[in-house]
Parts: sequence; C-alpha cells; structure tokens
Amino acid sequence: MKCAALITEYNPFHNGHVYHAQQARQIADADVTIAIMSGQFVMRGEPAVYNKFIRTQMALSTCDLVVELPAYAALSAGEYFAEFGVKVADYMNADALVFGSESGSIQAFEELALQINHIEEHPEFQIKLREGKSYPRIISELLGEPPLLQTPNNILGLSYVQAILKSAPTIQPFSIQRHKTEHHNQAISDNHFASGTAIRHALNTEDKMWEQVVPNSIHELYAKPHMNTNQLFPYLKYKILSTSSDDLRAIHTISEGFEHRLKSSISTSDNFEQLMNQLKTKRYTYTRIQRMLMNVLLNFKQQDKPTTLNAVRILGMNETGQRYLKQLKQDFPERRFITNVNKTTAPYFKPEIKATEIYNLISGQTQTDFNTPVIRVKNKEK
Amino acid sequence: MKCAALITEYNPFHNGHVYHAQQARQIADADVTIAIMSGQFVMRGEPAVYNKFIRTQMALSTCDLVVELPAYAALSAGEYFAEFGVKVADYMNADALVFGSESGSIQAFEELALQINHIEEHPEFQIKLREGKSYPRIISELLGEPPLLQTPNNILGLSYVQAILKSAPTIQPFSIQRHKTEHHNQAISDNHFASGTAIRHALNTEDKMWEQVVPNSIHELYAKPHMNTNQLFPYLKYKILSTSSDDLRAIHTISEGFEHRLKSSISTSDNFEQLMNQLKTKRYTYTRIQRMLMNVLLNFKQQDKPTTLNAVRILGMNETGQRYLKQLKQDFPERRFITNVNKTTAPYFKPEIKATEIYNLISGQTQTDFNTPVIRVKNKEK
Repeated sequence: MKCAALITEYNPFHNGHVYHAQQARQIADADVTIAIMSGQFVMRGEPAVYNKFIRTQMALSTCDLVVELPAYAALSAGEYFAEFGVKVADYMNADALVFGSESGSIQAFEELALQINHIEEHPEFQIKLREGKSYPRIISELLGEPPLLQTPNNILGLSYVQAILKSAPTIQPFSIQRHKTEHHNQAISDNHFASGTAIRHALNTEDKMWEQVVPNSIHELYAKPHMNTNQLFPYLKYKILSTSSDDLRAIHTISEGFEHRLKSSISTSDNFEQLMNQLKTKRYTYTRIQRMLMNVLLNFKQQDKPTTLNAVRILGMNETGQRYLKQLKQDFPERRFITNVNKTTAPYFKPEIKATEIYNLISGQTQTDFNTPVIRVKNKEK
Repeated sequence: MKCAALITEYNPFHNGHVYHAQQARQIADADVTIAIMSGQFVMRGEPAVYNKFIRTQMALSTCDLVVELPAYAALSAGEYFAEFGVKVADYMNADALVFGSESGSIQAFEELALQINHIEEHPEFQIKLREGKSYPRIISELLGEPPLLQTPNNILGLSYVQAILKSAPTIQPFSIQRHKTEHHNQAISDNHFASGTAIRHALNTEDKMWEQVVPNSIHELYAKPHMNTNQLFPYLKYKILSTSSDDLRAIHTISEGFEHRLKSSISTSDNFEQLMNQLKTKRYTYTRIQRMLMNVLLNFKQQDKPTTLNAVRILGMNETGQRYLKQLKQDFPERRFITNVNKTTAPYFKPEIKATEIYNLISGQTQTDFNTPVIRVKNKEK
C-alpha cells in the first residue's frame, strides 16, 4: 500500500484540511493517508482548541490513520519540528510527505535544500565563518535572499525537505500550493474555506459561520472550545513565580536571558495578554514567545528533549489505516506502534502524557492517554 | 532593655497568645517582647488563615516587635524549626526565650537536653551505633523513654533548649505551662480561651463564637479567612503533575520514596482531602505529609535550605519595639534588621517573597513584601 504522510495540527479540522488530504492522496498516488498531528499543544504556542482525541475523530473524516507528533517537537519551531515530523513519517514507512506551501514547486525546495545542506562546502563559507558571521547570515550572503525563505510555510516546507534529504531519502516530498485563504486571516470571508484563526475566533464568539467551512459529517464534534490561554494563565503565573531563573533558563526553547524577562514581568501581569505585552520585543515573534511559555507551563526541560524516536502513538484509524498498520507491524516487528497506553508503554510517551494531564487539569476534560485507546472508525465512501 | 522572645504562629492570634506573651514578660522580667512568627505558611503544613501582615497587626495588640521566622524553618518540624527560631532570637539579642509546654518545668528540659547533646559520650553509645541502631532509638534505650518526649509541645520545647545549649548559651529558656485548652480541640467550650483549630473552624463556618476568645481591640481584623487548602489544591496538583519524581525527591522534607506516592496518587485526587487520604500511612502524621505538600507547592528545594541567618525581616513594632530596634542597630551595626524589602534587601528573603507571591496568587490578597513596609503602631496601655 502506497502511503502519503501529512504533518498537521488540525486546530481545528476544516475544509482546507480536507482539500490538502485529498490532494495529497492524488498527487502521491497513495492508498493510505497518515496525519502526523500535534497533540494537546500546538506550534503557535497555545493549547489546542479541542483535545487531541476529538481532533483525531475530526481528522478521521478524511485521513486513514492519525498518529501523534511528539510533544517536544510540536512546541518547537523550524528544524526540530520538521526533523521529528519526518522521523515519524519514516517510522510509519511513508512513501511520500505532502506539505502545503506558498510556492508549490517542489523542485525549488529541493534545489535550495541541497544548496543549504552543502553550504559548508562553498569556497567562501570558511572565510565568512572566520569573520564571525552567523549561519543564517552566511546562507543569505552566499545564496542571495532566496524568495522561498520569505513566507512561513515555505520556510517550514524547506525544513521538511532538508530533513528528508538528510535522514529519510526514501520519502518523496510533494508541495501543494496552499489555498488562497491566508492562515491568519480572522474573517470567514469565503463560502467554503477559512483559516484556523478565523474558525477559532468564530467558535469562541459562538458565531455559527464556522459551519460552512467544516465538513458536515463532523459538525457535532465542534462543541464549546476546550481551552484557551486565559484559563491556563494562573498556572503559568504560579509556575514562573515558583521557579528560579536558573531552572527557567533550562526549559526547552527558552532563549538566553529570557528567563529574567519572565521573572520581572510576571508579578505585574494579571492575564495572558498583559504578560505577552510585557514580554514582546522586536527580537521575538508572538508565537515564539508563546511557545516558550507553553514549554514553561509543561516544564519541558531542554535536557529531556528527545533525540531519537522510539515509538509512535497511534491515535486513530479507519479500516484502511488498520490494514496498513497491520502490514507495518509485520514488516517492522522491531518498531513500536502503540495503540494503547498502559504501564508498559507509558514510558515512551512521558511528555505527551504530562501534556494531557495538564491540559485536562486546566480544561476539566477527562479523556486521558490511559482511558482513551486508539479510535477506530469505519471507512467512509470517498 | 531586657528582651523576651516567643516563637509563634498566631494562626490566628487569640487570648491564649495574650496570656503567653504576658506571662513571658513577667517570668523573664522583660521590657520588650518579640514574637518570632511564621509567615504565610505554618508548621502544620497549611497556608496561614490570614496573611502575615494581618497577623502582625493582631500580634501587635500584645507584643512589642514582630519578626518573621524564615519560611524553610516554618515548614519544618523539630530540630530545624527550633534551630532557626533560636537563631532569630539570638540575632535579635534576646535575653530569654519563653515557650509553652505541657510540662512547665524548665529544669527537666535542661537536664534532658544536656543528656541528649552529650549522648555520644555515653560509654554504650558507640556499641549501639555499631549494632546499626538509629539515633532516636539509642536515645530511648540509653535514657529510658523520657516522659518529656511524650507530648508535642514538650518535644518542641526540648528542641529549643537543645538549640540554645548548642549555639546560643546567653539566652535563658523559660517554660510556661500551656493553658488547659488542648491545641487541637475543635470546640470553643471555654468562655475565654480556645485552640487555634477551634477558632479557624469557627471563622470558616461563620460561627461568631470566636469573638469571646479574641481580644476585643482586634476583632475587626478577623475578616473572611484568606486561604485554605482547597483553594491551593489545583496548583498543587499542577505542580505534582508537571514535576518529575527526581525533582520531587529533591524537595525540602520529602522522605525517601514519598515522591512516588505523590506521583501515583495525584491523578486520582480531585481535592486536598482525597489526596491526603491516599497519601496517609502509619509511617507519617497528617501534619508531616501536609508540610511536604506545602514545600512542594512552594518548590522549596533541599539544596536551597538556608544554613545561616543573614538578615531578619521586621514585620511590625510598637514604640517600645522601635526603641529596642534602634538600640539593636547601634549595638550590632553589622547585623541586618530589614524593615523595608526592596531590590537591595530582597535577596535575603527569596523564599519568604516567593511564599507571599504564591499565597497572593492563590488567595487574591494584594499585600506583598515590597508594598508592605514594617507596620508601626502606638504603644497600648498595659
């Protein structure tokens, strides 16, 4: 069975994701599609609007298999996120990785990725390095300012292609042009598509507009959002107050010196927005800061950041996905495809279990990694 | 000026404390009384029912000077608590330390303390040690089971006397017999005296009975209690969920292996009482467990436990106290008596400041160590 992987967040799932998955199936000529999905927290540094189990059900409206992107990667930017996304795709023996980008041309990605991966062999590289220049600066000086590096999804796409070239060369990358809706557009202006931001906004304000941009078959899953940043703020404040600067500095993704900004801003912040306003500088984007904050909340330490992938958590599957998984277990008996988290398998997913426990404590949700085994659904007519 | 020190919690202040302070003044022939008071959290492993600033005002109805017992000591039992209480008394140049006990006879305390402090010189000590016996067991085998070690206030009193003999021999210890009201008696049965437990119970149930056992002049300070263990439970749960067993093991007062009990009990606990019921074993008293929990909440690490006293926080004083403090500053210019916490003096009180910040976050109180300088009151007629 030919398999196409997609690295996703589905926060929440909408028609744009249906389009992406269908295109992926077509372009990669795939029999099975795997969504490698972030769990309880997402890359923009927020708790997911619905927990990962509900979002798995949503995703199964279109994808055949849903597996979890490890939590440290989900709360990282760029390279590490892409590296682990590709690791999971490779572990799942995917033939293709299909990502959306502003560019859409996979050749451009591959050429640039090759150039960057081999930048150290460029005759002027060592000279510039000796001049004390940074890696990104050398890249932009030697390669010009590649247009591919001007937009966020292109940058992420490039990281996927770099990771594939480095460590998973059997995977074929495909890029599909993103639908015209800008990701951060707040309004649901189109009849059929909208950004995740617009949909979250509609859900939070009880604006029924989201219904037209979400598949009918899963409307019932779009209940009241499970969590937002205001709910977690008291816990975040407690965490920053109770933790020393030294220990904050040791948290995953925290930049040099940012621990002091956290300590000096927290006492005068009474909600998440106030804190963000105090922390914001030109040096960091909002999402970068929010990622740091979520890593603080989850107490994700730099020293515990995984370097290898030792198991994959299977969150959900339809009959096609189940057939693929069965084959996978036969072909790779040494790999761990975990459909049930229990005492024996829990050690592989400590960060993910912790993220769920904290998500539940704050949101009042009750689905845990232990009481929610893999979600199975019947195949739908395609 | 002759000075008598009392090691106190005043949780909250009541007529029994008035009696104790007046007796102390008389028995030690003192011109000034100093209350060395626990801050936001108390030895029974709970947040104080009122914050330390309000309790300071209460105490100034009777005492001349109120200073803070360092927070690590306040959340410790026995030796370390007594050691730091005596250190503060000595730093304040107290002539006497007056404590309540079931016994009341200071000679008995001094004799037993001397025997214990010199137990290692006993001819059989080394033999028993080589047999692998524990320190407390050797004491009870060599000294019999001293009646003084049968009741909690006697045990604490003995620790004071031991600490004085070891490190502050210029302080004269006095013991006064505790008033007949048992400390943990829940009912306010007497017309004039009641236990702290009974008063907290009355305050929490809006039973006006507390009025008869609290000095009239400070009734207005007895508003709605500031905090209880149910309010802090969500934060405690978050802390235990987000912290590794290794890091929990490193918390002040945590016993070997207790970190695993914490981790395995927390997921199935929805409130403080449920957690306590799961944690309770014969091996530990309720207060011992609660102290561990408060140290976890405050993230008080064993490695940060102070060993020396570098400054004393002055919480409040009347005119007599102020006069005494002025003299003290002249006599000991190298000592730090801190009436205002600011950027320069804050480093001496990191644990106490943290305890206040967390107390305030959870209770919604707004008096901080920075915005609340020493409380000054006029002398009352005695």
